[in-house]
Amino acid sequence: METLSALDRLFLERSYELAARGIGNTSPNPQVGAVVVRDGAIVGEGYHHRAGLAHAEVVALAQAQDATGATVYVSLEPCNHVGRTPACSQALADAGVARVVIGTLDPNPRTNGGGVATLRARGVQVEVANDATARALIERFARAVDRDRPYLALKMAMSLDGYVTSQPGVQEWLTCEEERLYVRELRIAYDAVMVGAGTVRVDDPQLTVRPAHHRLRDYVRVVACESDTVSETSRAIAHVADYAPTLVLAPAGARERFENLRRDADVLFVGDATATQLDLPEAMRALARRGVQSVLCEGGPTIGGRLIAAGLVDRLYWAIAPVLLRTDTAVPVLAGADLASLRQRVAIDSVERVGDDVVISGTLGPAHSGGTDV
Amino acid sequence: METLSALDRLFLERSYELAARGIGNTSPNPQVGAVVVRDGAIVGEGYHHRAGLAHAEVVALAQAQDATGATVYVSLEPCNHVGRTPACSQALADAGVARVVIGTLDPNPRTNGGGVATLRARGVQVEVANDATARALIERFARAVDRDRPYLALKMAMSLDGYVTSQPGVQEWLTCEEERLYVRELRIAYDAVMVGAGTVRVDDPQLTVRPAHHRLRDYVRVVACESDTVSETSRAIAHVADYAPTLVLAPAGARERFENLRRDADVLFVGDATATQLDLPEAMRALARRGVQSVLCEGGPTIGGRLIAAGLVDRLYWAIAPVLLRTDTAVPVLAGADLASLRQRVAIDSVERVGDDVVISGTLGPAHSGGTDV
Repeated sequence: METLSALDRLFLERSYELAARGIGNTSPNPQVGAVVVRDGAIVGEGYHHRAGLAHAEVVALAQAQDATGATVYVSLEPCNHVGRTPACSQALADAGVARVVIGTLDPNPRTNGGGVATLRARGVQVEVANDATARALIERFARAVDRDRPYLALKMAMSLDGYVTSQPGVQEWLTCEEERLYVRELRIAYDAVMVGAGTVRVDDPQLTVRPAHHRLRDYVRVVACESDTVSETSRAIAHVADYAPTLVLAPAGARERFENLRRDADVLFVGDATATQLDLPEAMRALARRGVQSVLCEGGPTIGGRLIAAGLVDRLYWAIAPVLLRTDTAVPVLAGADLASLRQRVAIDSVERVGDDVVISGTLGPAHSGGTDV
Repeated sequence: METLSALDRLFLERSYELAARGIGNTSPNPQVGAVVVRDGAIVGEGYHHRAGLAHAEVVALAQAQDATGATVYVSLEPCNHVGRTPACSQALADAGVARVVIGTLDPNPRTNGGGVATLRARGVQVEVANDATARALIERFARAVDRDRPYLALKMAMSLDGYVTSQPGVQEWLTCEEERLYVRELRIAYDAVMVGAGTVRVDDPQLTVRPAHHRLRDYVRVVACESDTVSETSRAIAHVADYAPTLVLAPAGARERFENLRRDADVLFVGDATATQLDLPEAMRALARRGVQSVLCEGGPTIGGRLIAAGLVDRLYWAIAPVLLRTDTAVPVLAGADLASLRQRVAIDSVERVGDDVVISGTLGPAHSGGTDV
């Protein structure tokens, strides 16, 4: 936006910092931050703490006390509907704000632009920066809007030559300690962390955020079982303080196999009595109905391949360890699915060195025309 | 080095820039650059153009005319032996130079430190920066010293899930145009560019630097044939201006199969009459005897895996395209070898975005203890 000054940019960045404080807590709402500036000075700041509490703009206006003639910087377009709280667009106009600078528009096609229209109708000057940072802050929310399944990120770790282990069924810690810390941090941003049953059997992960991160809503752990159950003594099933009971996704046609888990876990039976294999799209819908808006799936190769093949993956986090594991029995990073015919492409938006590893991340979508040049 | 000033650093960097002008031309000598500074001003510059011509220090001293009391910055320790040219250590002392600042020491264990000792014995002050940039400039030379095989870099391209193609025998242009330009630039720095026979059959590459880069010595193309020959009409075999005839590495026991190539190519038969499979270590020694000090191997998966398994690879260039190719018939990036038991690890020194792709590069060596944490 040509009309934004360097100072505008700084205040907008500050609204993004504030928004980020809500990471992990605001679901099903997005993270939002707001800054009230009068006569060049910040007089109010706020962010959305969690669903049901005040919106960022309302918090910032309350702190400012008098916002007459002020400019308000807000990471996301102010809401325009009276929900659990009054519409922020009206609250801003009521407070006498002269100008509103918005990081990105509301991604919901049903309400997009409504806040801007209301503000302008009431004589408030509005500018929209359409920043990548602002869009990234609401990526999980934006992709879950108007869909019946969660936003799903798939995190895999592989050797430079594409394998997770040189021998099936053997746990191989490919990645460095820094990478494992990186993943635990990632978990904070997602409503749920999920693995397939095979990973529970081989790696026996806890799936927890360690050290514990202050969070206003329960962490949720999910174990997706294709057909067979896992041991009730698995660490992913065991009770952990601050965590809700682990959700186990199981095919309804194999109900009796999961009796062992019903004391400790919350088993969601998916499909009907004829379903002996887990229907992944239906399982994701079941999670959405339980209020899970975003899922970080950490493998293994079978569920990873099946989730991609089913078109359920929105983002990849791909950790590459600087080792070579190729053997005749090595297990490739994705398995059990024909992915080439999907012609999907990753729009890479981040390549990081994490300790000795490289982590590539991007969104998954259809190949653009001429893209793969096959 | 604490004793180097910011100005020393700048002049040393300049010597590296000059050295880089020799890339592709100096083999079997390393690239070297030199700068003569008197009273704070550059009075002479030089670099080594090619084997048999003057060394960098001699060129720079000649340009300076009077180097009495000067400081000379040189990317590599001055040579101490009279070879095709007089010893540079003596030439510097003879010129009355007061101080020599060196990027990195001579990597040859037989001569390492000799230049420094001669200079100091003649009253010249010497400092050694031991810079990563200086070491990188001579990496190919340093690794080939005192060995009977070339420095070998393996360049592979794969999908994010570790495959080169979704179907065997099908050419799949995984990587972006920028990445293909990047590889052609890489070729400039190597004495020879090599592929396996399978790549010639499927991709039919030219293996040339395009657009042509000014070079003082012939480019060399190499085709390694495990057992069977390739078509004499392959583009890698066809005559190209400024290129020596393509070297074909073939097992001596399958001599009659390679008659088709002897008109256009220079066929090197490796091993004895019982050898029906190419002995790769022996083939690399044959290249070294032909004056090939560095090789860039661009695949395919079979020769790549076999070169690594044979311990012949010094550096990897790993291009990762943001696509997923997994199918039941997909060809993994490395094949036909057990690499896990080698326990080799890549010391990554570069991660680059190249167009839509990511290129990871590093040196290959034994895993350090506790490194892989398997």
